[in-house]
Amino acid sequence: MAGTNRIPKPKLQAVALAENGPAVILIEPQLGENIGMVARAMLNCGLTDLRLVRPRVDWPNEKAARTSAGADLVLNQVRLFDLTEEAIADLSHVYASTARRRDMTMTVLTPAEAAREMHSLSAENTPSGSIGVIFGGEAMGLNNDDVVLADKIITTPLNPGFSSLNLSQAVLIVAYEWLMLIDKTPARELVMSETRPANKSEMAGLFEHLERELDNGGFLRVREKRPIMVRNLRIILQRADLTEQEVRTLRGVIKCLTGTFAKKVDQSAVD
Amino acid sequence: MAGTNRIPKPKLQAVALAENGPAVILIEPQLGENIGMVARAMLNCGLTDLRLVRPRVDWPNEKAARTSAGADLVLNQVRLFDLTEEAIADLSHVYASTARRRDMTMTVLTPAEAAREMHSLSAENTPSGSIGVIFGGEAMGLNNDDVVLADKIITTPLNPGFSSLNLSQAVLIVAYEWLMLIDKTPARELVMSETRPANKSEMAGLFEHLERELDNGGFLRVREKRPIMVRNLRIILQRADLTEQEVRTLRGVIKCLTGTFAKKVDQSAVD
Repeated sequence: MAGTNRIPKPKLQAVALAENGPAVILIEPQLGENIGMVARAMLNCGLTDLRLVRPRVDWPNEKAARTSAGADLVLNQVRLFDLTEEAIADLSHVYASTARRRDMTMTVLTPAEAAREMHSLSAENTPSGSIGVIFGGEAMGLNNDDVVLADKIITTPLNPGFSSLNLSQAVLIVAYEWLMLIDKTPARELVMSETRPANKSEMAGLFEHLERELDNGGFLRVREKRPIMVRNLRIILQRADLTEQEVRTLRGVIKCLTGTFAKKVDQSAVD
Repeated sequence: MAGTNRIPKPKLQAVALAENGPAVILIEPQLGENIGMVARAMLNCGLTDLRLVRPRVDWPNEKAARTSAGADLVLNQVRLFDLTEEAIADLSHVYASTARRRDMTMTVLTPAEAAREMHSLSAENTPSGSIGVIFGGEAMGLNNDDVVLADKIITTPLNPGFSSLNLSQAVLIVAYEWLMLIDKTPARELVMSETRPANKSEMAGLFEHLERELDNGGFLRVREKRPIMVRNLRIILQRADLTEQEVRTLRGVIKCLTGTFAKKVDQSAVD
């Protein structure tokens, strides 16, 4: 439950991310919409190097531009190739993303493990852009000749009864796992603006204020139950991870309620 | 580099996965295509409980059916609601997925951390289907009134210069992180069919066969270089993680080449 008292500034820069990120190579993609969504997913994760081998649609493509949601940085530098071999010629390590098991003795990685390996490789002295992942077309996926061009296979573990990912979803998961290894976002953060977590003295002040008024109102009048009731109320408020501002708000609430409550109190209401 | 010698059987069952998985609640989704892709992404990850609040398209929806790629299990049990409050009424823990920072003091989780928390919650005695994640519409995302209905916020860390995910991509990442905590797929596996990793005795047989032929051919004739050349060749072959079948193939290759090579050998070729 760690928290900080400011809205974090962006910690990543797209350009810096893209420098060593993997190239994405689509073999015979069939739908402009999917190419656009691939570009969008790539840029979401800071990747920019998109290559198309024999796309089945015209290029540039209007539908791709629409579904890319403004990922021009990716679309404007797309490169087209006739052969997969040409598209990967400058790369030193290539992965094939496929859902199907092949009758080939190859190493299969999860996307998370592939991301770890790609980071290790790009942390060495390999030149920028030397890693790539190839993805097959929507209908058939990769053929075995293309798979063999890769060093290793990436397969996303999915529901085995329904394991076919949309092309852009398959790209997203690989790109997302890549980004997660760079990203430093805290897993859990109480986001506050212009305030800070209440300190223990402020919490004690709130507890004492509340308990004093509950004593006055008769809510804690049963002596043997008082300690456990006080403890339970403190636990509830403690669990709420209050900010300093919220403590002041709640003390205002108590004041308001006691002003009102005083007029209406009768014995049945405090049981 | 651990490997097993069989193609793994599916380890997950969609129905079992779905039992405790989070419900997905879309608030005012605008495009049937996206609803269908959400259904597909959910079923890819074993989730089945999809709820729509005031969808901006007719329901059932033909475009959703098409882009769902057969995720009927999800589409056929979609429930419609007028109010977000109604759509989440049966849930005990609700998360709001949003990319935008809000001026609200709420806990923000990464998708991975949210998945860990959801698993902890569903591992307790909470009834099936008691967790849900709400997602806003394509254009505007969630409004603050809907965000406040949630216990916590989920924000996917992304390229801060281009952080708006497609709706189905946002759902996929949350569902994928949920699934990854259940999944037992080895991160790295050498997949083999009808063979097994070569053992050290088979590797030694290969090394000795190769070195004997290279001695015969004169490739290792410089005495002081022989140890390092032998070591390097062994390292190359060792790194290839050979199977028993592949060792036999390579020994066949050596036999073939020595038959051929013997006819062509001259001094320049062996330097």
